Amino acid sequence: MIRTHEAGSLRREHEGRRVTLAGWVARRRDHGGVVFIDLRDASGVCQVVFREEEHAHDLRQEYCVKVVGEVRIRPAGNENPELPTGEVEVVATEVEVLSESAPLPFPIEGGGDISEETRLKYRYLDMRRQKVGEAMRIRSRATYLAHRVMEEHGFVYLETPTLTRSTPEGARDFLVPVRLQPGNWYALPQSPQLFKQLLMVGGMERYYQLAKCYRDEDLRADRQPEFTQIDIEMAFVDQDDVIAIGEALISRLWKEILGYEIPTPLPRMPYAEAMARFGTDKPDLRFGNELVEMTEFFSQTPFRVFQAPYVGAVVMPGGAAQTRKELDGWQEWARSRGARGLAYVLVQQDGTLGGPVAKNLSETERANLAEKVGARPGDAIFFAAGEPAPSRELLGAARLEIGRRCGLIDESAWSFLWVVDAPMFEPDGEGGWTAVHHPFTGPKPEWADTFHNDPANALAYAYDMVCNGMEIGGGSIRIHRAEMQQRVFDVLGISKEEAETKFGFLLEAFKYGPPPHGGIAYGWDRICMLLTGGESIRDVIAFPKTASGFDPLTGAPTPISAEQRKEAGVDARPKAADLPPASLPA
Amino acid sequence: MIRTHEAGSLRREHEGRRVTLAGWVARRRDHGGVVFIDLRDASGVCQVVFREEEHAHDLRQEYCVKVVGEVRIRPAGNENPELPTGEVEVVATEVEVLSESAPLPFPIEGGGDISEETRLKYRYLDMRRQKVGEAMRIRSRATYLAHRVMEEHGFVYLETPTLTRSTPEGARDFLVPVRLQPGNWYALPQSPQLFKQLLMVGGMERYYQLAKCYRDEDLRADRQPEFTQIDIEMAFVDQDDVIAIGEALISRLWKEILGYEIPTPLPRMPYAEAMARFGTDKPDLRFGNELVEMTEFFSQTPFRVFQAPYVGAVVMPGGAAQTRKELDGWQEWARSRGARGLAYVLVQQDGTLGGPVAKNLSETERANLAEKVGARPGDAIFFAAGEPAPSRELLGAARLEIGRRCGLIDESAWSFLWVVDAPMFEPDGEGGWTAVHHPFTGPKPEWADTFHNDPANALAYAYDMVCNGMEIGGGSIRIHRAEMQQRVFDVLGISKEEAETKFGFLLEAFKYGPPPHGGIAYGWDRICMLLTGGESIRDVIAFPKTASGFDPLTGAPTPISAEQRKEAGVDARPKAADLPPASLPA
Repeated sequence: MIRTHEAGSLRREHEGRRVTLAGWVARRRDHGGVVFIDLRDASGVCQVVFREEEHAHDLRQEYCVKVVGEVRIRPAGNENPELPTGEVEVVATEVEVLSESAPLPFPIEGGGDISEETRLKYRYLDMRRQKVGEAMRIRSRATYLAHRVMEEHGFVYLETPTLTRSTPEGARDFLVPVRLQPGNWYALPQSPQLFKQLLMVGGMERYYQLAKCYRDEDLRADRQPEFTQIDIEMAFVDQDDVIAIGEALISRLWKEILGYEIPTPLPRMPYAEAMARFGTDKPDLRFGNELVEMTEFFSQTPFRVFQAPYVGAVVMPGGAAQTRKELDGWQEWARSRGARGLAYVLVQQDGTLGGPVAKNLSETERANLAEKVGARPGDAIFFAAGEPAPSRELLGAARLEIGRRCGLIDESAWSFLWVVDAPMFEPDGEGGWTAVHHPFTGPKPEWADTFHNDPANALAYAYDMVCNGMEIGGGSIRIHRAEMQQRVFDVLGISKEEAETKFGFLLEAFKYGPPPHGGIAYGWDRICMLLTGGESIRDVIAFPKTASGFDPLTGAPTPISAEQRKEAGVDARPKAADLPPASLPA
Repeated sequence: MIRTHEAGSLRREHEGRRVTLAGWVARRRDHGGVVFIDLRDASGVCQVVFREEEHAHDLRQEYCVKVVGEVRIRPAGNENPELPTGEVEVVATEVEVLSESAPLPFPIEGGGDISEETRLKYRYLDMRRQKVGEAMRIRSRATYLAHRVMEEHGFVYLETPTLTRSTPEGARDFLVPVRLQPGNWYALPQSPQLFKQLLMVGGMERYYQLAKCYRDEDLRADRQPEFTQIDIEMAFVDQDDVIAIGEALISRLWKEILGYEIPTPLPRMPYAEAMARFGTDKPDLRFGNELVEMTEFFSQTPFRVFQAPYVGAVVMPGGAAQTRKELDGWQEWARSRGARGLAYVLVQQDGTLGGPVAKNLSETERANLAEKVGARPGDAIFFAAGEPAPSRELLGAARLEIGRRCGLIDESAWSFLWVVDAPMFEPDGEGGWTAVHHPFTGPKPEWADTFHNDPANALAYAYDMVCNGMEIGGGSIRIHRAEMQQRVFDVLGISKEEAETKFGFLLEAFKYGPPPHGGIAYGWDRICMLLTGGESIRDVIAFPKTASGFDPLTGAPTPISAEQRKEAGVDARPKAADLPPASLPA
């Protein structure tokens, strides 16, 4: 090692020690013949004093240097209690510039508003900034802890292929031409789902992996084309077993990294309850302000808009004081979400009701409304009416927006829960059914024999872990019996041929004594984002891409040359002789 | 959990305990009214006894079952000392078939010669076989140990992108079309080399990763298109530091998994010495039988073939007894390696020399040859003459072949060493130079100022870890100074423009105070193969591909549909407006 000590490790007890440090010039201050340098390395920062100016006069910001000197206690009054090394300084006797730095595109020390594109283009400089580097280190620690927890619970770490067969999941596959088999393509996996189920058939019993997954989706705000999940699958288990492992993992992470004890077992909320009370399957329980079901209340209403299969309300505390412009803004907000608007009533300070809706209500309704929804004078009440699902979704989004605008959310709080008992199926909009999770998700035990007769109400043996209104993990107990799988395919309208083509190799595997099994996958980027207090998963990815999948640092993706195109076999059509042997058992 | 106990965990002290087991029917034996089943799960095997035939009459091989019963001590004389559970058995009172099994394509228990393609097609059954499952579990344990060692040494685990920019390394990149930027392509990384160097510029100081790497090479016997390496990079270090971490990692693996203490520090052998003594840069030191340099010995030889810049020999113990056909076979062997043949002399039992070469030698040569090469009566001596490099390579290969044929290799032994001081450059065959490692590899300190003046002799600051004749890791101290990097590019004939195009973003990063750094990458598949006693890396990969990159299980790769082709933007030409902003600094 070039250094004898890490800069951030020096303390009072090192007084008089001759040390060699190596790191970067973080700050420089000149005081009449004496130059002070803050020397930064991965461990922290230490002040270095150059008494003779000639030693230091070359040193500019972010030069990489090696310094030899003696540790001394700082003169009284010069201590810096903010710094772990603040009681000492190193008086330099030698300095060597290991490499120079050009002027920086943005300062490393101190803040300043830097565009994300610039930060990503110079990610290696961004990473020298304390917060960014720290996020990387926390992610690393979390990764190690995850391995430890899984190892303690007897899991086997197995790597599944990333050059594989195109799978029939919702999102699009990234494709890879295969030079050695021109005209044939691999797909990058959207998840190791099929492989982890095969591992269960293979008797591995407890599998996990830190798995890279790929989805060629239209990139929304906080998506990356490649992302990481902690992928888990277990044989001979029930829902409670998978949930217990998840709680062990998450509570260990929060405890060891944040010192926060998650109260376990976590609450479990049925999907239907989450939708009714919070208008979402990932409720943020850091604040209340729940939706209020008003269908019964308005069952005799003269107001046409509220003569609907569902009417619900959510209160905005203090919302009656909003300006006309702010109230119009809510209409805009609702329309941008695909709704026609957001009906509201304002509860005046004297208890009377204002706003355009109020006058359409009956006298009884007006008299009882505020009490029914729990609104107080000065509050606004927002309504949605229509089909339950979209109405609740709108109110759920309004609730979150109210929470943010009114400061109802305790940003220091953690709300963890499981959302369970999701529906197995949802209408596909064309009179048929589609799987809410995936077609291998099993029914809850009480629906095992009957789900196919009542797909609208059948419940899946699925569970999502939700934290602060974000889904951070999701999984299910899988189907392992051919007969049951066939009934699911029948509901979904998947023919035998289609099933064979899409997942024939899994169905074939299930002929050979598959064990009951289930699992879960945790969004690792998102979990690390929560652990580091980041605002985006990009904050915890070393080299993230922008929303369009562009990497400002390397310039990827790029056009390819005609030669590359030819060599990779992009334009080859598979000849019969090149075709792989039939992979799918008849 | 469906079970209360793992089958392999039952012992004498469980006597009388009522247990529930779950697993697979491994073997079944019927003995007049009593049926014995070996029940297998991930923990091992336990005998289950069914007294009433009706309980068991359905149970066939590889049925997945749940059994409730009572543990009892086996009747005297019926113990099975081969099994950890051999003192007990479970007397079943209930059995439930969790799933049935179709007739198997090959037996799980017992051996039998099964083609690898069949094994891979039914990998989930193959994995139930003890040796295959055990290899997976050992790999998992090794992975966990690797994390532990790296964490103990303060390394930060960081994931680098796998959708990235095409890099200019030797082998071909796999390419991925980008739907959102039609006409633009990602490349899958051949290694995280450039990113890990950027992480060093970013001040991460100690990075490691279990990294998936991709090479679209012509697949040789034991290659996979995707493979895993333990990728390591460190800042402010010298060769000794990187070597020390490597020894800590490898010795921990061998100790905890195999109980073998690797004597450290490992020997270090200069590249030139390895070539001279063993004819390879990855010598197998489990046996001697070294090459003997004979150039001086034959400096006055009348034999035209030996009038060469280099003559070398290797002895085959007992080789004089080979038949004419066997000796001809060696000529075939040599020609298949691109040599013209393999000259030999047979040392007869009476000390006289036989074979076609002997009569061409001078009397002095004949008199002293056997002693000089260390051959005894009954041995054969093989020769190569010509340019040193190819001659040594041929003799090195002959040495290995002799080692195998003559049983000289102690298969239970481990030979670890570092091969150091490799050349920086080698002739590119067109009068120029090419980098032996990669163009960021630094020179040994004593060559720092002069390597460009003497590229033929300049030594790299590089090190390969070799085990039993296989390279299992390789790395180098990198160049971090622009001036030195430029001199390397000059030797390699890489113009400024070409360097900018190929690795402009790395060169740009190196403008901002890059630290001295170096690293290494270990071939994880190969290390796990050694730890498990496998013969191929396919033995330690859960779902490997065949040599042509075909996956017999899923049938990947496959043709893609016209719709997929269109959607993925395979045939799009990038429009100017779609082009990413210029990524490379001017």
